[in-house]
This record gives sequence, structure tokens and C-alpha cells, in this order.
Amino acid sequence: MQTINVDLGERSYPIYIGSSLYNELGLYVEHVRGNQIAIVTNETIAPLYLESLNATLTDSGKFKVVDSIILPDGEEYKSLSTLDNIFSELLKQKHNRTTTVVALGGGVIGDMAGFAAACYQRGVDFIQVPTTLLSMVDSSVGGKTAVNHPLGKNMIGAFYQPRAVIADLLVLETLEQRELSAGLAEVIKYGIIYDQNFFDWLEKNIGKLIALDPEALIFAIKRSCQIKAEIVAQDEKEHGSRALLNLGHTFGHAIETALGYGVMLHGEAVAVGTHIAALTSESLGLITKEMVKRIKDLLVAAQLPIYVPGNISNERFFELMAVDKKVLDGTLRLILPTSIGTSKIAENVDRLLIDRAIDAAR
Amino acid sequence: MQTINVDLGERSYPIYIGSSLYNELGLYVEHVRGNQIAIVTNETIAPLYLESLNATLTDSGKFKVVDSIILPDGEEYKSLSTLDNIFSELLKQKHNRTTTVVALGGGVIGDMAGFAAACYQRGVDFIQVPTTLLSMVDSSVGGKTAVNHPLGKNMIGAFYQPRAVIADLLVLETLEQRELSAGLAEVIKYGIIYDQNFFDWLEKNIGKLIALDPEALIFAIKRSCQIKAEIVAQDEKEHGSRALLNLGHTFGHAIETALGYGVMLHGEAVAVGTHIAALTSESLGLITKEMVKRIKDLLVAAQLPIYVPGNISNERFFELMAVDKKVLDGTLRLILPTSIGTSKIAENVDRLLIDRAIDAAR
Repeated sequence: MQTINVDLGERSYPIYIGSSLYNELGLYVEHVRGNQIAIVTNETIAPLYLESLNATLTDSGKFKVVDSIILPDGEEYKSLSTLDNIFSELLKQKHNRTTTVVALGGGVIGDMAGFAAACYQRGVDFIQVPTTLLSMVDSSVGGKTAVNHPLGKNMIGAFYQPRAVIADLLVLETLEQRELSAGLAEVIKYGIIYDQNFFDWLEKNIGKLIALDPEALIFAIKRSCQIKAEIVAQDEKEHGSRALLNLGHTFGHAIETALGYGVMLHGEAVAVGTHIAALTSESLGLITKEMVKRIKDLLVAAQLPIYVPGNISNERFFELMAVDKKVLDGTLRLILPTSIGTSKIAENVDRLLIDRAIDAAR
Repeated sequence: MQTINVDLGERSYPIYIGSSLYNELGLYVEHVRGNQIAIVTNETIAPLYLESLNATLTDSGKFKVVDSIILPDGEEYKSLSTLDNIFSELLKQKHNRTTTVVALGGGVIGDMAGFAAACYQRGVDFIQVPTTLLSMVDSSVGGKTAVNHPLGKNMIGAFYQPRAVIADLLVLETLEQRELSAGLAEVIKYGIIYDQNFFDWLEKNIGKLIALDPEALIFAIKRSCQIKAEIVAQDEKEHGSRALLNLGHTFGHAIETALGYGVMLHGEAVAVGTHIAALTSESLGLITKEMVKRIKDLLVAAQLPIYVPGNISNERFFELMAVDKKVLDGTLRLILPTSIGTSKIAENVDRLLIDRAIDAAR
């Protein structure tokens, strides 16, 4: 087991990475402060892991109440209305302010359960047990929780840190290939924006990651969490540099909204968005054609899509990007690579250049 | 104009108290950081003050966008569903992360607009312009925001501090007598839990407050905000002493839930709850019969109810109090006066004594 500490003052917390951790009683005993636990999970994960986790926690006799809340699976349920169902269950089972919400699932469950924990009785503890690669390397660090609104993704939420994150490689074995690849999109992002050596390593080891090689996975997850933790520690509430983590996300969110939530996986949309961002960088002269090719090739090797799906017009892209949270005072801000391993926040990029980049990714 | 500073480190903010402040442009210019403003108000307040505030802000040319969101009036609309309407409006009008939400209204508007500001795009600025005495002395200090859930009051919310509070005596002139009295319930509470001299002063000046004497009002609002600010500064997230502010609230919330939201005003329910708490203290031998009488007399002089309304059974009281946020690990915690001017958190009070106190308040 490896441990990374996310350093956020009194809101600091550990991320545990290893095999067969998700029902390791000691980790829960260490981080649950009260005697009530509510496990929030979904219909897909429940049959795989809920029974075992529930039994471990219940049989230990360490907790007075261990309840489970099973939600429907899918980004389309990441809504205020599902959130309301979580609140109803917590209230019906008389969970109080000292309860701990355990998010057992991918990014959608983490985002929703985390936001529910942030709001329930104005904030209760929560522990994240990510069951997808994406949620291990992305949502487990940084405290961003949210639900979607019909008018925009992740528009309603809170910055709220977990008490601990338990990233178990074992659960990746039941993950679909497509979901694994979606997680790799974010892993690749960290290389592009922050760490050339990591990008080089990824180019050499992408096959091992696809094949779930444990050593390669531990390294990739650990390095990804470290990079994210470093960036978040510098800028917890995203007033500045944290925005770099949004590489590919402004285009990606527009794609997800245009297609309707759930059609394309978040990581897949980010892969396409990263490709468009790289092309935008190239058309601005920030990076070379060869760098764009390396980025594109690595995404493809990770079995990710890189081309704009469906027939989303450029007009629709700009319309949807205009309500993106990264738009400050009406100014579109894009995260653009400035090499392999560095990136910047760019404002007022010429619309024609962005048009050209989108078209080049069709 | 008088200014009180609520001292909460980087979340500190001023409360301005005076006459004709609500549309004082300078206060907004000082505290709005972006160039978008969304005024959230209700149908009752809008015809009285919205047009003037809107004109002041718009005509100044200092802000690019000044929108108004008018909600239906009443505690029964303090729900996730109304919150969702606020989010929709903000998104439709393309409010971004630098927008400022201005809450123009009483406690319900402050709680909802504050919570909306806390969640919208994971947190935007907000300014409170309380239009009731209750919201001036209570919700304007402490950062508690929330909406109700059918299973419990204020169950969904956040601790979120405003950038500034503008408490304008002028707006109290259009306040119904009953609403004014409801505010006095919280004012009296501060005397009971924290400040004997203030309680003495209130006994002498309650008539002036009822008659809206400006000097008396400024003193009562200022002293109330000071007391609350002192208590909150010691314990922002309510892990300990802040709970003292809940005198009368555990009983009061049960009454409000039992009757259905909106039947009795919050302050009225708190007055009855304070009476029950005083009787509980008496039955525990914490305070004298004479002190209970002083508390009761002051509540009555403030034109507040002191008897349990309807036919809420003791059983129902305990059932509803069991889901109150003050219940930790199944232990009912009551705030009980230990004299005029001091109080304590009491756990495991004998149910028979509470039964007797409720019955004595019938």
C-alpha cells in the first residue's frame, strides 16, 4: 500500500493506493469519527462490492448504523433530484451530523455523494472509495463535488474535501475497457500540462496500463494524484493555476452537453477536447505539429476517441462554452499546452483559430 | 451608520446598520468584485424596494449585468425546488463565477439566496440586505444558509459567509407587527443566553422597540449582532458553544414541522420553545420560578406566543426532536438557561422533566 498526503492545512487527507483495500476495516476505523455510516453507491457497483464492504463494517461491531443508498447508474442521474433522494434516505435513517458518507463508485457517485455530504446538515464527513481509474486519478484529489443542471455540467456544487480516499486496484478488474481508457485520458492530461518525464513514461507504458499491470497502475495513479495534489495545494478554490487541470475540459464539456449527458464518457470527451486544445496551440504557434502528433498518438494508444462526434456545429461549441464555469466576465479562457509538460491559461484566443482547430478535429 | 465587523479571518465581513442604506450605491461598489449582480427577492419585497435598488445599481453604470429573481413569499418555498429555479435563472442570464448574489428579503430569502450563492458554480459572492428584524439580528451573522426538506427544517445547507450585510431600519417600517415581534424573540434570546444587562435593558425598552424607536432599534440590533458574532467567532462550524444560539430552537423546529412550515413564524415558534426551555430549566432546578416569569413576561410584552399551539402530542415532539440537527449520536441536546444571561448545553435530560415542561406550556 502506498499513501499520498494531500496537503490542505486542516483539510489535509491521505490517499491510500494498493490492492484489496476497499473493505480493509482499519482504514474506516481510522477515518470514521462518529458511529453512523451511509454507503452511497450505484446499481452496477452494488452487486460487486457492496455486500462485502457492508459485512466488513457491520460485523466489526464498531459502528452503530451502516446503511446503504443505491442509486441508478449514469451521469444522467447526477442531478439535484437524485441528491434529494440521498437526503431523504439519510433523514429517514436518522443520520445525524456525525455520520460519515462513504462514496463507493466512480466519479458520478463521488461527485454526488461528496456534494450530499457537503450539504447534509451543512456538512458531514465523507470517505471516497473510487471504483474507476478516472475517479482515482481525478475526482479523488481536489474536493470538487457537484451535480449537473440541465443548462450546464457541474454547475451546482461545493469545494469539499474527503477525510480519506481508498484507491483499490482490485476494483479496476471489473471495469469495462472503455471506462479504463476514459481514466487514461486524465492520466495523459497530467503528463501534457505538468510533467514531460511522466508523458515519456506513459508513451512507453501505455500498453501495460491497458493490460492492468499492477506496478504500472500504481505508478500512474500515484504520479497523477501527486501532480493534481501539487496543483490543488497551490490554488484550492481555482482562482488561478488550478485551471490548468481543465485542459480539454471546456471543449469536452461542450461535447458532453451537446450530445446529452451519458452518451460519451467524460474521459472520452476530454480526450477529444485535449486533441482540439493541442490543435489550437499548434495554430497559435505554441507547440509543434510533432508534439500534436505525440499527444494524438498517445490518446489513440490509450484507445480513446480524438475526433468530434456527431455533427456539433462550431456555433454550438461556442454557445455551450460561453456558459462554462471557466468563462469569467464573458471572456473565454482555454488551457493550452505550450510544450509536452507545460501549459498556460489563454484568454481572447482568436475565434477563427479555434474554429480551425475544431474543424481539424473532425 | 454603525458598522460591526464579524471577525472570521479571511471570511470576515462588515454589518452596516443605519437608516436608508439599502440602496446606498457606495456599499455595493465596495463589496461587489465582478460586474454581474443578481438580486434575489420575493413577491412581497419586490414592489416595495426592488425597483429602487435595481435603478440605483443599473443607473450607476458600474455593473454590466443587474438581474432580479423574484421568488414566491413564504417558508414553504424554502426548498430544493425553489433553489433549482434560482440556478436556472442564473444560468439563463449567463451569470459566471464572479457574479454577486444580493439577498433582498427576510430570513427565508437570505437562507436560500445564500445557499444558492454557496453552490452556484461551487460558490459565488453574496451580500445580504435583510428586510426583517429577525434576519438582521439572526441570519445576517454566522453564515448559516439552508433550505428545508420535507423530513426536517434547514437540513440541506452550507456554512457560507456573506461579503457584507446591509441592515436598513427604513425597511422595518413596512414590516408587519407580527414579523417584528418574531424578530424580538431572537433579540430576547441573546439576553437570556449571554447578557444579563441586555436582558434588563430589553425589559425596560421593549415598548420602544415595538414602536420602532430608531435609537432603541439600532442598539438592540447592534448588541444582538455583537453577541452572535462573538459566539460564532469562537465556534464557526457549531462544534460546541455556538449551539447556545439554539435556545428554544429544538422545541421550536418541532413545532414548525408539526404544524407545517409557514403556519407559525419561526420567531414565534422560538418564543414558545424558549418558554419550554425555561420551564425545563426550572424543573431541573437550574433557574428559579421568578426567572421563568421574567422570561415569559418579556416574551409576552414583545407580543409573542408562549404556549404550544394546536394539539401536538409529547410523543410527536420527541419524534421530531430526534431528527433535529442538534441530536448527536442519538443524544438529545437541549440549550437551557442557567440564569438570566447564562446558559448551557444539556444532554440526557430526563424525558419526564421535558414532558412536564411541555405540558406546563400548554
